[in-house]
Amino acid sequence: MTRGRLEAFSDGVIAIIITIMVLELRPPEGHAFADLATLYPKFLCYVLSFVFVAIYWNNHHHLMHAVHRINGAVMWANVHLLFWLSLVPFTTAWMGEHGADPVPVAVYGVVMLASAIAYFILTRTLLAAQPAESPLATALGRDWKGKLSVVAYVVAIAVAFVGHWISIAIFVGIALVWLAPDRRIERTIARRDS
Amino acid sequence: MTRGRLEAFSDGVIAIIITIMVLELRPPEGHAFADLATLYPKFLCYVLSFVFVAIYWNNHHHLMHAVHRINGAVMWANVHLLFWLSLVPFTTAWMGEHGADPVPVAVYGVVMLASAIAYFILTRTLLAAQPAESPLATALGRDWKGKLSVVAYVVAIAVAFVGHWISIAIFVGIALVWLAPDRRIERTIARRDS
Amino acid sequence: MTRGRLEAFSDGVIAIIITIMVLELRPPEGHAFADLATLYPKFLCYVLSFVFVAIYWNNHHHLMHAVHRINGAVMWANVHLLFWLSLVPFTTAWMGEHGADPVPVAVYGVVMLASAIAYFILTRTLLAAQPAESPLATALGRDWKGKLSVVAYVVAIAVAFVGHWISIAIFVGIALVWLAPDRRIERTIARRDS
Amino acid sequence: MTRGRLEAFSDGVIAIIITIMVLELRPPEGHAFADLATLYPKFLCYVLSFVFVAIYWNNHHHLMHAVHRINGAVMWANVHLLFWLSLVPFTTAWMGEHGADPVPVAVYGVVMLASAIAYFILTRTLLAAQPAESPLATALGRDWKGKLSVVAYVVAIAVAFVGHWISIAIFVGIALVWLAPDRRIERTIARRDS
Repeated sequence: MTRGRLEAFSDGVIAIIITIMVLELRPPEGHAFADLATLYPKFLCYVLSFVFVAIYWNNHHHLMHAVHRINGAVMWANVHLLFWLSLVPFTTAWMGEHGADPVPVAVYGVVMLASAIAYFILTRTLLAAQPAESPLATALGRDWKGKLSVVAYVVAIAVAFVGHWISIAIFVGIALVWLAPDRRIERTIARRDS
Repeated sequence: MTRGRLEAFSDGVIAIIITIMVLELRPPEGHAFADLATLYPKFLCYVLSFVFVAIYWNNHHHLMHAVHRINGAVMWANVHLLFWLSLVPFTTAWMGEHGADPVPVAVYGVVMLASAIAYFILTRTLLAAQPAESPLATALGRDWKGKLSVVAYVVAIAVAFVGHWISIAIFVGIALVWLAPDRRIERTIARRDS
Repeated sequence: MTRGRLEAFSDGVIAIIITIMVLELRPPEGHAFADLATLYPKFLCYVLSFVFVAIYWNNHHHLMHAVHRINGAVMWANVHLLFWLSLVPFTTAWMGEHGADPVPVAVYGVVMLASAIAYFILTRTLLAAQPAESPLATALGRDWKGKLSVVAYVVAIAVAFVGHWISIAIFVGIALVWLAPDRRIERTIARRDS
Repeated sequence: MTRGRLEAFSDGVIAIIITIMVLELRPPEGHAFADLATLYPKFLCYVLSFVFVAIYWNNHHHLMHAVHRINGAVMWANVHLLFWLSLVPFTTAWMGEHGADPVPVAVYGVVMLASAIAYFILTRTLLAAQPAESPLATALGRDWKGKLSVVAYVVAIAVAFVGHWISIAIFVGIALVWLAPDRRIERTIARRDS
């Protein structure tokens, strides 16, 4: 089985997810700066989710680049990840409307948590499809970023009911940790390519 | 004629179909769990249709992988399949609003049935374009899953007017049968590749 | 310059155009067959436009397949075609609402006419970019279908103000003429490939 | 790292951005020419933004074609450009509603300016990833069009509060300057290919 169409389909779905979120940013009724300013919570949610989805695309790119074999389990693990990511426009829109309320913030965190778990399952399914000692196994290593994110999302969901700003700060923090490209995989690939 | 652009176009259309369905999941007015809970019929319909469309993409991938030649008839059989799949967001939205009423459930079944028939026509058109004894012919074999699905959809449509839950249970059952990747095709390809 | 990304971008835009048209098919308020039946003018417009856009994609595929060189003029001729096709969802929605009124039918025809002219310009720009005696020149030949369509669209636009059904019949007739794949190009390619 | 998926993802996002803008062109309530005519400011904004996004796609195509190596910094510089382009549907919709008011025109200019800066950053990041004396370095040269555009956008934003038509004229002027394909890059590639 080739990885080409899996990448193409994932690129398509992720490109649509990242783009349709902007449909929530409805132009304001008025035409003054003050009207535009009312959109700032929605805009910040859009930026956060755009970065979040872009990180998944970026890591997906790195992950697939280190892979040679895929199978049916990989295809469904990938569809499972796309399913959770497809809910991001919904949770972004809800948090954009009610960013100061605990439930929308917590639900945003739940979808982020589920996406992180789905990504983790995808890495394990990919590992199982590779031969032992594959570059992917070396590259992923102990995967502390993946594990840390899962813990951080759980904390963010619980904390939303105490102070929603703490949760949002945790979301931003996780995004910053992931913004750095996955040097483990990059390094291993560079070593193999040289 | 190459199969590359046919795959690329199908990936694009299917990626958009599977993603725009989420636009029906409008964020609720309120910001409590109770508000979110009112969305559960729409959410379950979304999950069902997401799985349904993903199954078509997955099988389409397997099907095309076993194919070497395409022609004009294949291109139009493929567009015909995409047409019926493009109606899935519509029937999903209608069943999401009126999931306990017979007509929306039956119409959902009609689009599923038409998609199954369109997929069947696509496999036959592809077979006609291949040389005799092609791997596709061996792989598809008697195609009991395709035939069973058509019968099951007809039953589900009829039964919707008696009890809509039976129809929905049949839809879920068909999805589960197809969730397993098409081992006939996979096995044949593996044999050929080795 | 390679034709790969031009094809990929066109596939993307055409896939989105053909799919977002279904967003106009809003689920009816009620849940009876009678409610669904009120959608039939919109549904027929959707089918017509789906076929129309699919024909362009199909012919675009054939056209590009016969081509080796592209340049800046080809890229802009292609963007020009995509611009007119991008207006199809708008004219489809308007004709779907007001299919018995002359202006929406005529405007639908204007966008179809402009798309046909844009496709004609694309073929000429492509021809100019190929060496003399290219397979494309032989394949396109006198292009009677392209010229006939332009005349037919002009007639359909004028006739809309007399009887809109005649215009719609002309649209359907043109679609049927084009539904057959462009055998001129297919034959020439087959000859070259053999 | 390969440039293939970066191109595919960018094509996908740009194709969606350029196409969803048409969703703002809602069919008018009535069915007369007069009803259609009320849409002309929105239509002109759509045309301007379509050309604007198409120019970015075209230049992106040329830019990537001259490139051999990409890295993590390039991927994020590219996502950064896509982010600003993704706001074009929003600013187009707002200016389409309020094209005679200074703030929407100025905000349209701000997103255009940010896109131009993001494109400039992308070219620098790409240059840094290439070996010295790469064809890209020669091709980009002093990049007077990029620098001119940035200055022109700044002027257009400031001038919007004096006369919005001057700003819109500047936008159209910049589009016309860019409509010509980047002959510097084309020439260098042609030289290298020969």
